Amino acid sequence: MLSIGIVKESGAEERRVAITPDLVPRLRAAGLGVLVEAGAGDAAGFPDSAYSGAGARIVAGGPAGADILACVDRPPAGRLKAGQLVVGLLHPDPAYLAELAAAGVTAASLDRVPRTLSAAQPMDARTSQENVAGYRAAILAAYTYGRFFPLLVTAAGTVRPARVLVLGAGIAGLSAIGTARRLGAVVTGYDIRPEARAEVASLGANVLDPHGRSTGRHTGEGAGEGTGEGGYARALAEDEQQAERDELARHVAGHDIVITTALVPGRRPPLLVAEAAVKDMRPGSVIIDLAGGNVEVTRPGQTYVTGDGVTVIGATNLPATMPAAASEVYARNVCAFLDHVLRDGELALDPADEIQRAVIVTGGAA
Amino acid sequence: MLSIGIVKESGAEERRVAITPDLVPRLRAAGLGVLVEAGAGDAAGFPDSAYSGAGARIVAGGPAGADILACVDRPPAGRLKAGQLVVGLLHPDPAYLAELAAAGVTAASLDRVPRTLSAAQPMDARTSQENVAGYRAAILAAYTYGRFFPLLVTAAGTVRPARVLVLGAGIAGLSAIGTARRLGAVVTGYDIRPEARAEVASLGANVLDPHGRSTGRHTGEGAGEGTGEGGYARALAEDEQQAERDELARHVAGHDIVITTALVPGRRPPLLVAEAAVKDMRPGSVIIDLAGGNVEVTRPGQTYVTGDGVTVIGATNLPATMPAAASEVYARNVCAFLDHVLRDGELALDPADEIQRAVIVTGGAA
Repeated sequence: MLSIGIVKESGAEERRVAITPDLVPRLRAAGLGVLVEAGAGDAAGFPDSAYSGAGARIVAGGPAGADILACVDRPPAGRLKAGQLVVGLLHPDPAYLAELAAAGVTAASLDRVPRTLSAAQPMDARTSQENVAGYRAAILAAYTYGRFFPLLVTAAGTVRPARVLVLGAGIAGLSAIGTARRLGAVVTGYDIRPEARAEVASLGANVLDPHGRSTGRHTGEGAGEGTGEGGYARALAEDEQQAERDELARHVAGHDIVITTALVPGRRPPLLVAEAAVKDMRPGSVIIDLAGGNVEVTRPGQTYVTGDGVTVIGATNLPATMPAAASEVYARNVCAFLDHVLRDGELALDPADEIQRAVIVTGGAA
Repeated sequence: MLSIGIVKESGAEERRVAITPDLVPRLRAAGLGVLVEAGAGDAAGFPDSAYSGAGARIVAGGPAGADILACVDRPPAGRLKAGQLVVGLLHPDPAYLAELAAAGVTAASLDRVPRTLSAAQPMDARTSQENVAGYRAAILAAYTYGRFFPLLVTAAGTVRPARVLVLGAGIAGLSAIGTARRLGAVVTGYDIRPEARAEVASLGANVLDPHGRSTGRHTGEGAGEGTGEGGYARALAEDEQQAERDELARHVAGHDIVITTALVPGRRPPLLVAEAAVKDMRPGSVIIDLAGGNVEVTRPGQTYVTGDGVTVIGATNLPATMPAAASEVYARNVCAFLDHVLRDGELALDPADEIQRAVIVTGGAA
């Protein structure tokens, strides 16, 4: 019988766990023995007793010998075993790929799930985690901001709603837009991809296009202009980026909250908001930079208040700050992937399978 | 010309300020000189420059000689001047009333505004601050809870929405209910006053009545049973309170978030949730006790996690944690009261006036 091991994550700020107790029975039904490193779920609120109660075995030193290793981030060094299938958000770069190859493992990186294949969507961990990140960003903004998000009508007069600007309308951006709108804020979304702007409009938010036009609806103009491979944003040329920053600067100062989520695959996050634009914001405003580099003054992983009273949050791992929910949806992605590669309790890797070709980045199917 | 002084609040956790810069022109138009203690608005995000820019004079040692003193909480001791009108949330008890009388001031306590008079509602600082507190409680709950408030539909399955129970459906409770519902939680409200339960139902939340029945609508049964003077809740007898706790205990464990706001004027907050009920809640659950004594295990002013993984927040001054919004609405209440007692730039106190009779607790109109 194959075994699956769930590691205790080693990152200092990482509170997620790859498999939650509710899914242990599903793994066992698929024919796997389940080994859980002691304390693996503690930070997400899942005690060892919940895992053992669900039929897992708790192992003190970590599940070193497991046939499958499930993790969130890259597994701790020295934990890999030749022949093992490693499943996680590995974000593989050439150096890490070489490391995995040297260890002789087969690595499945769930950040590589092809979003456009509907059969792959239940495994799409990037989408599930960005959904958490966007929701969390809006809640964090509401918590940090010293005023109401909704319009307030009182006997002593009205108080205007908060104005929220979301830059980058991928999964995280759309999730932030939807949550801020639920809370009653006036929300504007921006993206260089026309199809993403159409999604913003469909949520009922205002749309800001790269030419600085703000409308309540999507115009459809210039379809494809900012769209790159796989539906992600393309990298703009430096002069395009400067024009974009100049345009955005005119809008940033008019907003109380700016949430940035712009990523370009394989590149540094684009710089969207320059320091001068932040200086023009009102005291009490809040910036949350999910990409960690969309705003010039962001300090990744840190929160601070500028001399002008603007709170800047470099929130590069928001899913880890809502660990129970993030782990629960991530664990379902892992299980969906395992369902896809297990046949009668055995690994059935298939290099011809389109999903596996995208996800398995080394070893067996490479 | 009369002058009004705005003090820097002295409480360690108090971040509000009694008058915000936007209202300085309104006070000046009413014929008042405006003196602001240096740094009075700093903690709420209103720098001295905003006050001076609006026409106020900044005074370093505090506005000791002002004819009117505006404050949020009780003013710092030794700051009062005989003949002065002091306006604030004074929550006067007999000892403090004696102190005010000895100082020879006229004291207007805006927590005493009669809510039922429509002319008084613009001055109703208790309502404005409870509104902030309830909104803030729901945001704080969403921020503290490790999961989503809304139902989440994903390609890998759905995640159920959070279940929120709000005990006490006055202004703060209703504000918390409305905000939690905006965020997509499944919300149930409880109150011993039938008319408050009708308000819960009108917000679309589930209603739990003192006999433990949970319905989607208000039944109207037993009108007046838990209602005391002025529409506030009455104090229950000890056997009634025990029966209430026993009933509530059956419901508390089924909820992820419990927000308590039950106050009885002039009494200690009623104990609604006993320690045993908290022990039955799931790990990861969150309790926010706005009254500071509705939950047996609350530590007022503190946040801690129980051995069973329940986060308990003794949030007794939530408006101070959203100081910009709380100050802005409070300042409007203060101005509305001053409009009521000023005639051509002079104080025109009238002991026959129903609002002043309620609000002025000592001195001129007593």
